[in-house]
Amino acid sequence: MNAEIISIGNELLNGSTVNTNASYIARRLHESGVMVTSEHSLRDRAEEIKGALAPALDRSEVVIVTGGLGPTHDDITKNVMAEFFNSELVYNEDVFRNIQQRFEKRGITMPAVNRGQAMVPQSAELIANPLGTAPGLLFRPENRLVFVLPGVPREMESIMEESVIPFLRKKCPECRVQVDFFRTTGIAESVIYERIRKNMPAFSSYEIAFLPKVTGVDLRIIRLGDDIKDKEKFDKFKNILYTHIGDHLYSVDNRELEAVLGNMLTSRGLTIAVAESVTGGLVQDRLTNVSGSSGYFMGGIVAYSNEAKIGFLKVQAATLEAVGAVSEEVAREMARGVQEAFGTDMGLATTGIAGPTGGTATKPVGLMYAAVAYHSRVEARKFMFGENREVNKQRSAQAAMEMARRFLISLAIVE
Amino acid sequence: MNAEIISIGNELLNGSTVNTNASYIARRLHESGVMVTSEHSLRDRAEEIKGALAPALDRSEVVIVTGGLGPTHDDITKNVMAEFFNSELVYNEDVFRNIQQRFEKRGITMPAVNRGQAMVPQSAELIANPLGTAPGLLFRPENRLVFVLPGVPREMESIMEESVIPFLRKKCPECRVQVDFFRTTGIAESVIYERIRKNMPAFSSYEIAFLPKVTGVDLRIIRLGDDIKDKEKFDKFKNILYTHIGDHLYSVDNRELEAVLGNMLTSRGLTIAVAESVTGGLVQDRLTNVSGSSGYFMGGIVAYSNEAKIGFLKVQAATLEAVGAVSEEVAREMARGVQEAFGTDMGLATTGIAGPTGGTATKPVGLMYAAVAYHSRVEARKFMFGENREVNKQRSAQAAMEMARRFLISLAIVE
Repeated sequence: MNAEIISIGNELLNGSTVNTNASYIARRLHESGVMVTSEHSLRDRAEEIKGALAPALDRSEVVIVTGGLGPTHDDITKNVMAEFFNSELVYNEDVFRNIQQRFEKRGITMPAVNRGQAMVPQSAELIANPLGTAPGLLFRPENRLVFVLPGVPREMESIMEESVIPFLRKKCPECRVQVDFFRTTGIAESVIYERIRKNMPAFSSYEIAFLPKVTGVDLRIIRLGDDIKDKEKFDKFKNILYTHIGDHLYSVDNRELEAVLGNMLTSRGLTIAVAESVTGGLVQDRLTNVSGSSGYFMGGIVAYSNEAKIGFLKVQAATLEAVGAVSEEVAREMARGVQEAFGTDMGLATTGIAGPTGGTATKPVGLMYAAVAYHSRVEARKFMFGENREVNKQRSAQAAMEMARRFLISLAIVE
Repeated sequence: MNAEIISIGNELLNGSTVNTNASYIARRLHESGVMVTSEHSLRDRAEEIKGALAPALDRSEVVIVTGGLGPTHDDITKNVMAEFFNSELVYNEDVFRNIQQRFEKRGITMPAVNRGQAMVPQSAELIANPLGTAPGLLFRPENRLVFVLPGVPREMESIMEESVIPFLRKKCPECRVQVDFFRTTGIAESVIYERIRKNMPAFSSYEIAFLPKVTGVDLRIIRLGDDIKDKEKFDKFKNILYTHIGDHLYSVDNRELEAVLGNMLTSRGLTIAVAESVTGGLVQDRLTNVSGSSGYFMGGIVAYSNEAKIGFLKVQAATLEAVGAVSEEVAREMARGVQEAFGTDMGLATTGIAGPTGGTATKPVGLMYAAVAYHSRVEARKFMFGENREVNKQRSAQAAMEMARRFLISLAIVE
């Protein structure tokens, strides 16, 4: 089964928006065994959209159109699709009520302009949009499926996950692919490649992709047909990863590091508190992205000033004087301090220089220390990152959480 | 002058790479007054590439092709272009020497596979690639310009900046555009539209786009030609925005809310501390994304447990008992508490239920309170968001910072 993506929106063609929707849709279709052969981004212009639709429908069984379903004058996709398929727009009471309820829930009177969203093409099947006012549409011209989705990423994603992907999976059960993720951190793409490449010829039927992010490299393995059933072969493959990059592998089920860490804390009945300087709240933001984190995360301190480090975390003024706030010693004292202040089993701390200013010859931008306190023990580590402030914060938060994860593993081995 | 972009590479169509090249090229062309009307991503397949080239050349004066110029077997773009333009590949001594020198500089013998890169289409003009082995190519079929660039982002970008953009600017000096952003929060796209639409006919020559995000709606205005010079008309336009959505307008120069707030604090010589419950560190993470934030942001407390709210923020146990942690009173006490604990001018606090669990009939998921303490004053506000945990955190953080921004504005008016 082949698919094409048509993305609609002026913002995609004047460079003000990166088309992350297209890569998301392409990735999810690919993982469902549907081959994407073309992605075409177009402006909000009726003739241009129709001009791209016709050849896409000639070539491919599935076309996914995204963008331009909002309520304002520049959102023309629904009308263009209705014209293209000679389908009259008709008022739909259910859609209207859903829109009205969304506004009521927020305590806002529905603006008149949203009424237009209740007009839908007669020949289209409606697809529920759990997160927005514009329903998705499905047209079925002969032997073709044309899905029309909103361009707001989270709305598009929820419709993809809840409707489009399950629909396509049912349509083509033999298109099944098995997708596995092995998520790593603290190791470069080229190093992973060097370590495993001599073992790879035996797995040439696997599609192996390296997906690098600032916080680490994900390996995505796609298997088809017999490879899905061959558990022994996959076990061999996993064993190669465990042997060569096992230390860096934090997730084999595509969970985030904070979820993995949260799970380890929960299963061991441990609590954690966090003291942040360089990461400025990001570690705690990520920890609290996990539903249920209030069970093990008690809270923490963002100590941006020396006064806050001394006042809340009992960092010694003498230590700050002697070695400065960005130092292994201060990281240790912060971790111990927050652990004691919150009365938790574990304390986690970060200190560093995010940049772009504030670096010196001995303490350059990108220098960062993380520390873990656990009962009477404290461990600290030094890291050297790059020059971009937000990237440094992200890498520092990831490194600190990874330290905590490894500490908990070492604990399990010792006990 | 119209342009189209053709991006080539399997990685773009299986979702393993986000096409940032396309948005970069589109943005730079747009800012140079060249309108991009289509972006088409294709696999490394000769027939598919030729099938997209022909209509692009029919429609547009400029076509920019990117990707697939590397030395390996799956890089077919150069050969496809040569075939398409009936241009023989010929050996080029200069290109060969450049490739050889690049390898020599790195102390590496040139791999045999790179020799093929010295073969170039006879009818193409070569464009220097300062950062890589593959030169860019320029074909000039009648009244058309076809640039062929490598897909490695930094190589593509350097050729764009040093050759393509200067070339096009010279070609069309009158093609300038002016891009302005007006960023809003706390107001729906449809509400903005309702409020301003009756005034819009006078500005039909402006390209006005609504760009909604979970934290607010950005308006992007693009002006061309005489509209750039007509300051009076643009002032009238801005005046309409200030009149109808002025309260919600936090930035007219495309800065983030945390940067705007930071600037207001800096210019008034004020300091801030933050107490977070529902946002779990996100407010502080965003505040510290601003370089120089250590000048006004002293730090804060993530108080996820009641004990932390009592211990660090002096929230009254009696208040927690009487009205619960998610309440206007607790938000107020948290704001006051963090302001006093850190000795800052301002204290900012959030409390709420991020979900998906933890909601009750009277306190559903999405309920959130924010409070601002400033010297002896405290203000609080109730918000009702949705069901997604991360989105609720993002909206809550934005709402809290927006409260602080508005408080500072009201202060300026009173003083």
